[in-house]
Amino acid sequence: MKRIMINELKNNMNEKVMIKGWIHRIRKLKSITFIILRDRTGMVQCVLNNKEIDISLMKLESVISIIGIVNNSNNKLNNFEVLVEKLEIINDFIGEMPIEINKDELEVNLDTMLNNRVLSLRHEKINSIFKIQNIIVQGFREFLTKEGFTEIFTPKIVAEGAEGGTDMFEVKYFENKAYLAQSPQFYKQMMIGAGFERVFEVGHVYRAEQHNTNRHLNEYVSMDFEMGFIENEEEIMDMEENLLRFILNKIDNDGKMYLKKVNGNLPVIENNIPRIKFSKALEILEIEYNKKDLDGDLDPEAEKLICKYAKEKLGCDFIFLTHYPRKKRPMYTMPYNEEETRSFDLLFRGIEITTGGQRIHNYEMLIKNIEYKELNKENYENYTSVFKYGMPPHGGLAIGLERITSKLLGLDNVREASLIPRDRTRLLP
Amino acid sequence: MKRIMINELKNNMNEKVMIKGWIHRIRKLKSITFIILRDRTGMVQCVLNNKEIDISLMKLESVISIIGIVNNSNNKLNNFEVLVEKLEIINDFIGEMPIEINKDELEVNLDTMLNNRVLSLRHEKINSIFKIQNIIVQGFREFLTKEGFTEIFTPKIVAEGAEGGTDMFEVKYFENKAYLAQSPQFYKQMMIGAGFERVFEVGHVYRAEQHNTNRHLNEYVSMDFEMGFIENEEEIMDMEENLLRFILNKIDNDGKMYLKKVNGNLPVIENNIPRIKFSKALEILEIEYNKKDLDGDLDPEAEKLICKYAKEKLGCDFIFLTHYPRKKRPMYTMPYNEEETRSFDLLFRGIEITTGGQRIHNYEMLIKNIEYKELNKENYENYTSVFKYGMPPHGGLAIGLERITSKLLGLDNVREASLIPRDRTRLLP
Repeated sequence: MKRIMINELKNNMNEKVMIKGWIHRIRKLKSITFIILRDRTGMVQCVLNNKEIDISLMKLESVISIIGIVNNSNNKLNNFEVLVEKLEIINDFIGEMPIEINKDELEVNLDTMLNNRVLSLRHEKINSIFKIQNIIVQGFREFLTKEGFTEIFTPKIVAEGAEGGTDMFEVKYFENKAYLAQSPQFYKQMMIGAGFERVFEVGHVYRAEQHNTNRHLNEYVSMDFEMGFIENEEEIMDMEENLLRFILNKIDNDGKMYLKKVNGNLPVIENNIPRIKFSKALEILEIEYNKKDLDGDLDPEAEKLICKYAKEKLGCDFIFLTHYPRKKRPMYTMPYNEEETRSFDLLFRGIEITTGGQRIHNYEMLIKNIEYKELNKENYENYTSVFKYGMPPHGGLAIGLERITSKLLGLDNVREASLIPRDRTRLLP
Repeated sequence: MKRIMINELKNNMNEKVMIKGWIHRIRKLKSITFIILRDRTGMVQCVLNNKEIDISLMKLESVISIIGIVNNSNNKLNNFEVLVEKLEIINDFIGEMPIEINKDELEVNLDTMLNNRVLSLRHEKINSIFKIQNIIVQGFREFLTKEGFTEIFTPKIVAEGAEGGTDMFEVKYFENKAYLAQSPQFYKQMMIGAGFERVFEVGHVYRAEQHNTNRHLNEYVSMDFEMGFIENEEEIMDMEENLLRFILNKIDNDGKMYLKKVNGNLPVIENNIPRIKFSKALEILEIEYNKKDLDGDLDPEAEKLICKYAKEKLGCDFIFLTHYPRKKRPMYTMPYNEEETRSFDLLFRGIEITTGGQRIHNYEMLIKNIEYKELNKENYENYTSVFKYGMPPHGGLAIGLERITSKLLGLDNVREASLIPRDRTRLLP
C-alpha cells in the first residue's frame, strides 16, 4: 500500500489509506483515543477504538504507520479525520522528552532550542522558517538565472583574504597555512573577467569575529552576485530592487501557509527603495535623533534609527545608503571622489542586510588604491594580475541569508534562521 | 544607447546597435580590419574602415564597446556582421598574453590552464563545461524540489567527523580544535528526524587525502540527498535513476549548444540501470578479466572493468553495485545480513560517482554497529542521541558534481570540471 501525504487526504474521502509520521498528540478518552499524526505536509486527527488497538505503548514523537478510512469530521485541523484500522509503531521514542514541542508556542530559551535542534525543528513555527528560507534562496537563483547569471562554486579554502586578512579562521592545509574565505569577492570578480560577465554564488562564508551578538554568525550563507559591463553602482541597486521584489512575490505565492504560521509580515516595495548618501544619513541622524560621533560607518543603534526614519518619513522598510567613505571600504571599491566611494549598504528593519557597490576594474587604479589603503600589493598579486587581462566595469553585492530571513520573519536572533548555527561558543550539534 | 547581446543581433538587422565585449581576433587588411568581438552569448565579426578608425592601439582581449550597423554577410560565425561606426576601448589588455586562447583548441597543459584560469575560462570549450555544470546543479535541485525535498545548509565547521575522523582538515576555531566536514551525512540524517523527511544540500565538502590523482579534489561540491519513510535502499536507487534521467534530459534541452562545443556525448538511460551485487561484481571481474585480490572495494582498474562490462554486456553507461561489505562501509550503514549492507555505489564510465544506501534508524542497532566497527560511541553521542527521538527509516546518497561533470563531458581530469580547484598542492589562484 502506498503512503499518502496528509495534505492529500482531502482527495481520498471515504477511502482506505496509509499514512505515516510522528505522534504529535495523544488524547485518551474512555472508549476512544485521538491521535494527531504529523508528517512533513501537515497534521491529521486519527481516531482509535481502545478495544481494538492497544495504545499503552504509544509515546509522543514515535514514528508510526496508520491504515484507516478518511471520514468526514469537524475538527480544528481539517474537515476530515482518519478512522484507524491498523496502527504500527515504526520507531519508538526512547526516554524522556527534553523539550515540549507539541504546544502552540515553543516556550524554551534559545540555547535549549538549539541544543535540541532536531526536536525544536519539528515545531511547525520553527520548521516554517526554513521553508520560507528555501523560497528566498530559490527566488534568488531563479531571478538571476533569468537575468543571464551563471551559478559558480568557488573555493572556501584560500591562501589570502579578500577583506584585508583579519578575523579569518586558519586551516592547516597539508604543510601550508590557509584560511576560510570571508567572502567569494575575489573569485566572483575573477569570473566576471573569465567571460561569464554575470555570476552568482550561494555558499558558506566565515568570519572569525570575537563578538557574540544576536546579529552575527561565524559561519553563514552568503548570497552573492556580481555583474559586468555596468555604468555605475546604480545598476547594482536596480538589480537588487527587482531581485527583492521577485523574492517577496515568490514568498507571497509559494509560502503563504508558512508565513501565516510564523506570523510573518512581508514588506511591500511599492515605489523605488529610497537611496540617500551616507553623509546625508549622518546629518539626518544628528538632526532627527541627536545621534552623533559616527566614524565612517553606522553602529547598530544608528542602523535602527535610520530604518525608523525610512519607515516613518519615507514609507519604506528598506533604505539604501550610498557613497560610503573611502577610508572604511575595502581596497577594491570604486572611488567616487577623494572621500567617497561608489558603494552602498541596504538596510532593512534595523539592520544591514547587503553590502555592495561598483568595483575598480582598471589595473593601475587598483594598485594605487591598494597603496592608498596602506596594504602590501605583493600580497594581492594573484588577484590584481587578473586586472591586466581586460576586465570590464563591474560591481555586485552580498546578501546574508540568515539575516534577511530573520528580519523578514521578525525573529529576535539571527541564530533562529540557521538550522545548525556556529557562533563564538557553539560547535555542536 | 542600450547594449545588445551578440546572440540577439539577428533581431536587429540593418539597425544601429551597441555591442560590448572582448576582442577575440584581429585581422588587418589593406583598407579594412576584421575584429571578432566576443561576449558571454557568442561572437560576431565586426568590420572597420582603416581610414576612419585607428586600430594601432587595439590588443587582443581588451574590453571594447562598438556602435555599428548590423549587416547581411556570409561569414563563419553568423549570417550577419557589424559595420563599425564607433569603437571605444573600455579597458586595455596590459602586457603579454601568457597563453593563447583564441584558437579552436586550448593547447596548454593542465597546470598552465589552471594557473591562468581567468584567461583559459574565456575559451568557449572551457567555458561550456561550466554552463553544463550549471544545468546539472539546476536539474538536481529542480527535480528534488518537485519531489518534496527541502534544501538545507548545514555547517562545514564540525566538531567530529562523519566518516571516522581520518583525512580531515583541522581548523582553529577560537580556543577549540574543529574540522572541515567530509560530508553533510550526520546533518542530513538529523534533518530527516527534524521533520523535513526529504532534504538535499549542494555544498562544499573537504577531504584531506594525501594522494594527488586525476580523480580527486580536496575540496569539492557534493550534491547530497536524504529521504525518510523508505522501505529499503531500492527506493534511493529508483530516485537516483529518475533524477539522472531528469538531469540528462535538461542538458539535452537547455545545453545542446554547450554540449556541441565540448563534443560531449550524453548517455541514454533507456531501461533501468543494471543493479548487481558487489559480490557478483567480484565474480565477474575474476571470470571475465582475471582481476582478483580486491578486498571489500573496487580499485580504479576494477571500476573501469566493471563499467566496460556494463557497457558491453548490459548496454548501459551506468551500473549500480549493491550490498557492499559491512566491514568497509561506515557505521551508519544499514546491515543487510552479517556480511553485507544495504548500500550501493553508482559507477559511470569507469568511475564511482555516487555512494549511497539505507541508514540505520534504530538507536540500539546504531550503538551496536558503532561497537561492531570498534569505534568509541562516546564520540558520537551528539549524533546518536537524535535516534532516540523517533527517526523514520531513511537513506540517501551523494553525487560528486565535478566527477559527474567530467565524465559526462569526457574530460581527462576532474580538475577541469572545477572553476578553481584545490588539490594536494594547489592553493592558488
